[in-house]
Amino acid sequence: MIEIPALAMIIGVAAFAITGVIAGARQDANIFTVVILGVVTAVGGGTVRDVLLEVPIFWTEAFTLIWVAIAASCIAFFFAKHVITRLARTFLYADAIGVAFFTIAAIDKTLLLGHTATVAVTMGFVTACMGGVVRDLLTGTPPLIIASEDLFVTPAVVGGVLYAVLLKTMPAYVDIWAIVAIGFIIAFRIYAIRTSLQYPSKLRMHF
Amino acid sequence: MIEIPALAMIIGVAAFAITGVIAGARQDANIFTVVILGVVTAVGGGTVRDVLLEVPIFWTEAFTLIWVAIAASCIAFFFAKHVITRLARTFLYADAIGVAFFTIAAIDKTLLLGHTATVAVTMGFVTACMGGVVRDLLTGTPPLIIASEDLFVTPAVVGGVLYAVLLKTMPAYVDIWAIVAIGFIIAFRIYAIRTSLQYPSKLRMHF
Amino acid sequence: MIEIPALAMIIGVAAFAITGVIAGARQDANIFTVVILGVVTAVGGGTVRDVLLEVPIFWTEAFTLIWVAIAASCIAFFFAKHVITRLARTFLYADAIGVAFFTIAAIDKTLLLGHTATVAVTMGFVTACMGGVVRDLLTGTPPLIIASEDLFVTPAVVGGVLYAVLLKTMPAYVDIWAIVAIGFIIAFRIYAIRTSLQYPSKLRMHF
Repeated sequence: MIEIPALAMIIGVAAFAITGVIAGARQDANIFTVVILGVVTAVGGGTVRDVLLEVPIFWTEAFTLIWVAIAASCIAFFFAKHVITRLARTFLYADAIGVAFFTIAAIDKTLLLGHTATVAVTMGFVTACMGGVVRDLLTGTPPLIIASEDLFVTPAVVGGVLYAVLLKTMPAYVDIWAIVAIGFIIAFRIYAIRTSLQYPSKLRMHF
Repeated sequence: MIEIPALAMIIGVAAFAITGVIAGARQDANIFTVVILGVVTAVGGGTVRDVLLEVPIFWTEAFTLIWVAIAASCIAFFFAKHVITRLARTFLYADAIGVAFFTIAAIDKTLLLGHTATVAVTMGFVTACMGGVVRDLLTGTPPLIIASEDLFVTPAVVGGVLYAVLLKTMPAYVDIWAIVAIGFIIAFRIYAIRTSLQYPSKLRMHF
Repeated sequence: MIEIPALAMIIGVAAFAITGVIAGARQDANIFTVVILGVVTAVGGGTVRDVLLEVPIFWTEAFTLIWVAIAASCIAFFFAKHVITRLARTFLYADAIGVAFFTIAAIDKTLLLGHTATVAVTMGFVTACMGGVVRDLLTGTPPLIIASEDLFVTPAVVGGVLYAVLLKTMPAYVDIWAIVAIGFIIAFRIYAIRTSLQYPSKLRMHF
């Protein structure tokens, strides 16, 4: 098992929470609603993962990450007008960091419970994207995972498969593979953002 | 542990179910759909709570409350045109009673399972609002919890925190604190309905 | 317990997956998104059932049906333009087969866990419809179960009740009752499709 650095988890949770605040801003929401959206986005993925794994939901055992999400949402709320809109791109990068760490941490957790690599990669994917899906459902916007034209979750899935394959082939180097996979997901996602990377036309449906 | 009076649970479930029927009416739905909406609204919150707590879902052990929800939905269906629309405000009050009792009952259940007060208050909130969220998602309307301008779930959360604090400080008087918290939630919610209470402009986002 | 033939499960999963692909086609989605929609539609109902029953999610123990859903989604993706639109009605029939087998299999699974017949029928209903509900939510269309004018889930519920009653009265003939109930659901659903069967006006709400 790898140790996800606490700072990485905090960056990820805060970045996810802020995307929730930005979504709430579009709805002219009050601070209470904004905090709910931030928290749900931040911990929604991990919650669904733990429900599917039938293990205690992580925040029922350690509430800290929810406090981080609440704090990040409140700060974002009060600085939203002046800062968030100008730094929107920066948050996409923070979001990429969150996705990367959450994916790999979820794969580790699932493998430790004795599940197969296939199930683990699925859980990595679920953890990375479910928070955003719930956020989009609550704000009545079509889920980004479906509607978005650029590569949103593909990096997490490809990076997750890479991690699982490396781990299966050479299990001794778990720490190195985690760093490699996390770096890969971040780099792939940032590349996709910068180049507005899309699937080629042949792999998209046109009716 | 407090004993929630059976009548209060029945009033709450029936009130929640009727809000589901009213939502279905807007969709020109048939009786089967209306009953589904009523039942989901009535037991959805408690179902999500039990999923998150990883305990048996309450209605798999005692189906009675689902029968109550089905009966309330059917009655509401046949009287909808003549009665419900005229009594819409009355149902808001019944709904407030349901929210209050469900919140406090959920906090009690969670504390009994050995969780912290923070987790318990969270579960109280989830129980009070998730039924309505699922109802709104199923009928394709933006969830009230996000879209509503008046104070919808805030009373339940504030009352839940109040109950948890009182219980922690003076655990001997659990029955009294339950009555106090339930009364507080009902009064706060009704006050919010009557005065169209909103968060001050500073605590709302304007983009 | 009855043995659901593997072929029936595969037909059902593939049919459900293809309805997901068709829903994705309306969104101009890429192949990755299409596969997600297909898989979620195919295994979503069974996943929710297992979450509510608090048993290990079926695909964490046997991933095969997810591979079937992935394969069906990919095939449907590449033949979508030429075949699916022309065969839309055929898929409604395949879908009816899936609903029938999934409902009865879910009832059996729930009864085997020691739950009452009422809970079992509820789980049959949840399994049959939740995949489609999640598909509709993800694609931002009003859930068919609520919005659809024709009889969509009613056959599954009526067939489920029939199965439970027969099983309770004469438990020895479980295999026969399963075949009867599955045949009934398929026939009822196909009759509803062919005749655009609707609830009579008295059982629908008009505001």
